[in-house]
Amino acid sequence: MNNIEGLDQNRQTAAPAKEKRVPVVFEGYGRTSGKMRTDFKILWPAYGEEFELATDEGAMHGGDGTAPPPLALFTTALGACVMTQIRAFAKMLKIEVKDVNVHVRMEWELIQKGKEPYETAPVGFTMDVEIDSDAPVEDIRRLMETAKKGCFVEQTLGRTNKVSHRLMLDDQWVEL
Amino acid sequence: MNNIEGLDQNRQTAAPAKEKRVPVVFEGYGRTSGKMRTDFKILWPAYGEEFELATDEGAMHGGDGTAPPPLALFTTALGACVMTQIRAFAKMLKIEVKDVNVHVRMEWELIQKGKEPYETAPVGFTMDVEIDSDAPVEDIRRLMETAKKGCFVEQTLGRTNKVSHRLMLDDQWVEL
Repeated sequence: MNNIEGLDQNRQTAAPAKEKRVPVVFEGYGRTSGKMRTDFKILWPAYGEEFELATDEGAMHGGDGTAPPPLALFTTALGACVMTQIRAFAKMLKIEVKDVNVHVRMEWELIQKGKEPYETAPVGFTMDVEIDSDAPVEDIRRLMETAKKGCFVEQTLGRTNKVSHRLMLDDQWVEL
Repeated sequence: MNNIEGLDQNRQTAAPAKEKRVPVVFEGYGRTSGKMRTDFKILWPAYGEEFELATDEGAMHGGDGTAPPPLALFTTALGACVMTQIRAFAKMLKIEVKDVNVHVRMEWELIQKGKEPYETAPVGFTMDVEIDSDAPVEDIRRLMETAKKGCFVEQTLGRTNKVSHRLMLDDQWVEL
């Protein structure tokens, strides 16, 4: 019996590191609160956290300009997610980082036939990253690659995602 | 000559509606402004608009909780983009809309092997939409389909996008 236990222990030592998967869920409740303004309550239930965020459009798009447009939040979400993970993983990888600056450029296009409602498509997203650090160049590269893989927003943009919709019609939820 | 001109005019009338493509560009400049806090200046150059946005993390993730986390902005961006376009296209399609309420649920996962830095992946995004309107059900469905196609964020999530990065290394921009 002792021999067999010892053998199992050896096997465990040789086995690859155990993989852990943790769900990360955000929920948002949005309501119209102006001509184009939207107010959102965002919940992060796992931590009991709650946030208030709003968007609006300028007068050119029929709004009152009381808050940034949705694409400003989207642009910030991508850039800030990478910047957060650079700092989070710098600690984990023991790479000293003094400061981070990022320039993000997001390009979409609007395609309209005659007077029909327009359609939209992404064109390209670029990010210039400056990491202020005395660490060797190879460490900075490794940190950046790790931050990209650990950035929820960037990993989402890199996949084809399906957004599932339900629409309330005649008092019933209908899948679209 | 007159005959030929007349013929050309007829041809133009019979031709499909002309397609117009308009670039939509947002630029963001982010700087670290706390342990995990990031401040972003967002420019919408085509309209000369400028917005300030910030993100932070709670104490659990090494931040000071001074602003919502990047994923709260991301969740709001998706929900608010669809809600904005429902109202914008309602006007265009002459469908009366009194109110819109949306519930968005965003799920990602964090995958960690042993003590290595974790990686992330999207799991699923769902959106429940309530459009308060006296319009026929078919109009509401059509409005929703039009808003999906016209929502920049949703169309971005539905594609595989490449985020291109440049990293400043030894005072030079290096493509990753």
